[in-house]
Amino acid sequence: MKELIAALPVGRVLTDPDVTESYARDRTFLRPGKALGVVLAQSRDDVVTTMRWATEHRVPVVPRGAGTGLAGAATAMDGSVVLSLHRMTSILDLSPDDEVAVVEPGVITADLDRAAREHGLMYAPDPSSYEISTIGGNLATNAGGLRCVKYGVTRDSALGLEVVLADGRVLETGRRTMKGVTGYDLTGLFVGSEGTLGVITKATVRLRRAPAEVATVAAEFSSLRDAAAAVSAITAAGCQPSLLELMDRTTLKAIDDWKNIGLDPGTQAMLIAQSDASDSQRAAARMAELCDANGASFTALSGSPEEAAELVGVRRLAYQAKERLGQCLVEDVCVPRSALPEMISAVEAAAARHDVMIATVAHAGDGNLHPVFVFERGLEEPPPQVWAAADEVFREALALGGTLTGEHGVGLLKRRWLALESGPVATEIQHGIKRVFDPLNILNPGKAI
Amino acid sequence: MKELIAALPVGRVLTDPDVTESYARDRTFLRPGKALGVVLAQSRDDVVTTMRWATEHRVPVVPRGAGTGLAGAATAMDGSVVLSLHRMTSILDLSPDDEVAVVEPGVITADLDRAAREHGLMYAPDPSSYEISTIGGNLATNAGGLRCVKYGVTRDSALGLEVVLADGRVLETGRRTMKGVTGYDLTGLFVGSEGTLGVITKATVRLRRAPAEVATVAAEFSSLRDAAAAVSAITAAGCQPSLLELMDRTTLKAIDDWKNIGLDPGTQAMLIAQSDASDSQRAAARMAELCDANGASFTALSGSPEEAAELVGVRRLAYQAKERLGQCLVEDVCVPRSALPEMISAVEAAAARHDVMIATVAHAGDGNLHPVFVFERGLEEPPPQVWAAADEVFREALALGGTLTGEHGVGLLKRRWLALESGPVATEIQHGIKRVFDPLNILNPGKAI
Ligand SMILES: Cc1cc2nc3c(=O)[nH]c(=O)nc-3n(C[C@H](O)[C@H](O)[C@H](O)COP(=O)(O)OP(=O)(O)OC[C@H]3O[C@@H](n4cnc5c(N)ncnc54)[C@H](O)[C@@H]3O)c2cc1C
Ligand SMILES: Cc1cc2nc3c(=O)[nH]c(=O)nc-3n(C[C@H](O)[C@H](O)[C@H](O)COP(=O)(O)OP(=O)(O)OC[C@H]3O[C@@H](n4cnc5c(N)ncnc54)[C@H](O)[C@@H]3O)c2cc1C
Repeated sequence: MKELIAALPVGRVLTDPDVTESYARDRTFLRPGKALGVVLAQSRDDVVTTMRWATEHRVPVVPRGAGTGLAGAATAMDGSVVLSLHRMTSILDLSPDDEVAVVEPGVITADLDRAAREHGLMYAPDPSSYEISTIGGNLATNAGGLRCVKYGVTRDSALGLEVVLADGRVLETGRRTMKGVTGYDLTGLFVGSEGTLGVITKATVRLRRAPAEVATVAAEFSSLRDAAAAVSAITAAGCQPSLLELMDRTTLKAIDDWKNIGLDPGTQAMLIAQSDASDSQRAAARMAELCDANGASFTALSGSPEEAAELVGVRRLAYQAKERLGQCLVEDVCVPRSALPEMISAVEAAAARHDVMIATVAHAGDGNLHPVFVFERGLEEPPPQVWAAADEVFREALALGGTLTGEHGVGLLKRRWLALESGPVATEIQHGIKRVFDPLNILNPGKAI
Repeated sequence: MKELIAALPVGRVLTDPDVTESYARDRTFLRPGKALGVVLAQSRDDVVTTMRWATEHRVPVVPRGAGTGLAGAATAMDGSVVLSLHRMTSILDLSPDDEVAVVEPGVITADLDRAAREHGLMYAPDPSSYEISTIGGNLATNAGGLRCVKYGVTRDSALGLEVVLADGRVLETGRRTMKGVTGYDLTGLFVGSEGTLGVITKATVRLRRAPAEVATVAAEFSSLRDAAAAVSAITAAGCQPSLLELMDRTTLKAIDDWKNIGLDPGTQAMLIAQSDASDSQRAAARMAELCDANGASFTALSGSPEEAAELVGVRRLAYQAKERLGQCLVEDVCVPRSALPEMISAVEAAAARHDVMIATVAHAGDGNLHPVFVFERGLEEPPPQVWAAADEVFREALALGGTLTGEHGVGLLKRRWLALESGPVATEIQHGIKRVFDPLNILNPGKAI
């Protein structure tokens, strides 16, 4: 560590155990190991220096953005160094003509979106955490979000990367153009690789035209399955929502207890749908109709941006509201669109069978559900019945043709189910790829694959 | 070869040299080597058998779809076996509810699109060759097309693959869901890998809602730069065209000479723009206005699907029309959107300086240009001045922040420029990845990377 401290500019390395501990965990309940220290990188050179040192001394490095992850991917292990990118916050270039931005990895997601809006553009990927997560973390997890039902996940906005490899070499991938097929798609390989293949130090991302108007529908249902049926109907009718979010009663109740949103006693589910098309009012009206036709007990349509922001704001509070109830194990299964109602029933059944509190929100338009298992504060880890219920939900998702994780990643949390989804050939290939980039297993060992 | 013939069902292997030769080339001028034979695979098992045999005997294998490639990626080498997938033409599943299709690799692109339309859906990626190319070839080249300005390239529609590796092992990648981040993105790695990493035997692809209406604008310009300026204006105004194609006079003249489209003597360029938004008429009217404002000599707007099909049909004839003029070297540079006018000037300058005929079409909305260098029939390869002009165009594209190839791939044709775009670290990593999948270099050796 002395050598590392000497090699970096003054103040870059923190070794105070309390401080280190605060950089060693993400937003899961997982308890980190004891890290040797934290590097607060301020430039690519800092990252290169750190990685060269780590390779020389065989020290595991855990890249870290804002630590908002929900899979334990940024959880530090004993004897590792945490490499935090959150101080690299420059937007280096924002070109309205090319509809492209070049950013450092520590830029907060919503900050980039706001900077783009000044030019009539937007940065589309918007995890609920977008006010607190970093672009680097979003890239490393291939974050989804509310708008991705229309605009795709982070991968769909990533054009090119600058990456520092485990041994300190600098790799550039991709390009500034909208299309390009020179060589294998290394950009895509880094997106979602959870810091195991390299440290992203710069990214070229795609911006899109910001929509002129947005119309929003909020619909309440007295059954969760009715709400799921409305989702299917909206998709099938080709409404192309720019947002289609579902919350169950447990979630709504948690938000209501905290923020007093005036929740009706009979409401079992709420759907928020948005259209940002040029005929957004018409599209939203159609979505409202389809909610009514599928048994909504109450439907409201609004063209006001303030009301829309408020409604979506409620949705963005969902996770924090649940954290007030206890510790959370957050699942992230994603199923083929048509399987959404079945998946929801399976979650309800698992909750009942194991007597566990599960509060579900869903990026419903994509078939991506977040059943959040709430358990007692103070416990070291989820009690057996929570794991049993979680196991059931994972297996059901896979049985329905789905996946363990739609957007949060595998991290440490989902490793034990990984083999159920990836066959032995895929697993072998994944590890082979890891060795090409990081033969000494320096970068975030034990995560993701 | 005897062993291979014996191992496969009767009739799968062709060894007649004339037949073999017809399977040994793509649509470039490149002369193939002498292949040992052609396997006409009809099932995954045929592919597994072939690859096991090839690995055992160290025989290079060239996967092949329809041979419509423009980069020499399916060009056979001496002593290789061509593995054609074009007989695997089943659409195994088409789910309107999940908006997903599962297909064999030999399905013709437009056939899948038509099958989807029966359910109100479409398969978005539509290379100009979509009536003759295969989905497997589209995946292996990450094909673009006319609609990709709005709907993205083939990558953006690929959800999951079944792939036979060089040694005959079967790998499954991806999933049937809209999102998913379990493990590294192997699907993305195969897309665009030009048959060098594995043989795609099945693909799960995303379908989209087919638009209800389409409005089309055709505008003629007396200068190519004016047309390029109109493209920039259309993008900047946020019109979100679903198609934005540019043709220069040389291209139009070639089409006119063949199909008599009534080309005006003063027309130097034509722009075809389309909107498939729900207010397509309004969007198209705005695009027409912007053409007028940028000096169009003639603008026509039509809401009729027949007229639209006719206009787009003209564009799809462009390449065949040029092939009537002589042999063609097709470039495929892609530049950041704002650099389109400059790139066009550079192409014109190269044509003039080297006295070479260059006919350019562009997927203009994406900054993707196809300058087609026409040279004398009968020549073994392009004369020096054509290579010199092509070299200039490549270098200029890279200098403008662009790429060698937007959608056709590297194949054999662009290998000599590859190092200009991919640095040494990227090159080393690419070869490392190749070794993970194909350590004996059996699959399409010498292509792509
Ligand atoms: C309230 C709340 C709501 C959320 N909502 C969503 C949602 O809607 N959608 C969604 O997808 N996620 C959501 N998340 C999860 C989380 O915000 C995302 O995973 C996010 O992308 C993590 O970003 P981060 O900067 O916090 O990364 P971290 O948590 O710090 O790290 C995550 C992973 O990325 C790696 N990493 C970080 N930076 C780099 C880099 N520069 N180079 C290489 N690797 C790097 C880390 O090693 C780790 O593997 C939510 C989280 C919370 C707390
Ligand atoms: C008139 C014309 C217009 C065109 N317009 C466009 C256009 O607009 N956009 C565009 O992108 N391209 C265009 N092309 C180029 C060409 O059509 C595309 O590259 C197409 O994707 C090739 O498909 P194919 O089935 O003919 O593949 P092939 O030419 O047979 O093969 C191409 C590559 O794919 C590999 N391959 C094929 N099948 C498989 C498989 N199952 N598994 C693994 N590897 C495989 C081959 O090894 C080779 O490397 C055009 C070509 C022509 C002739």
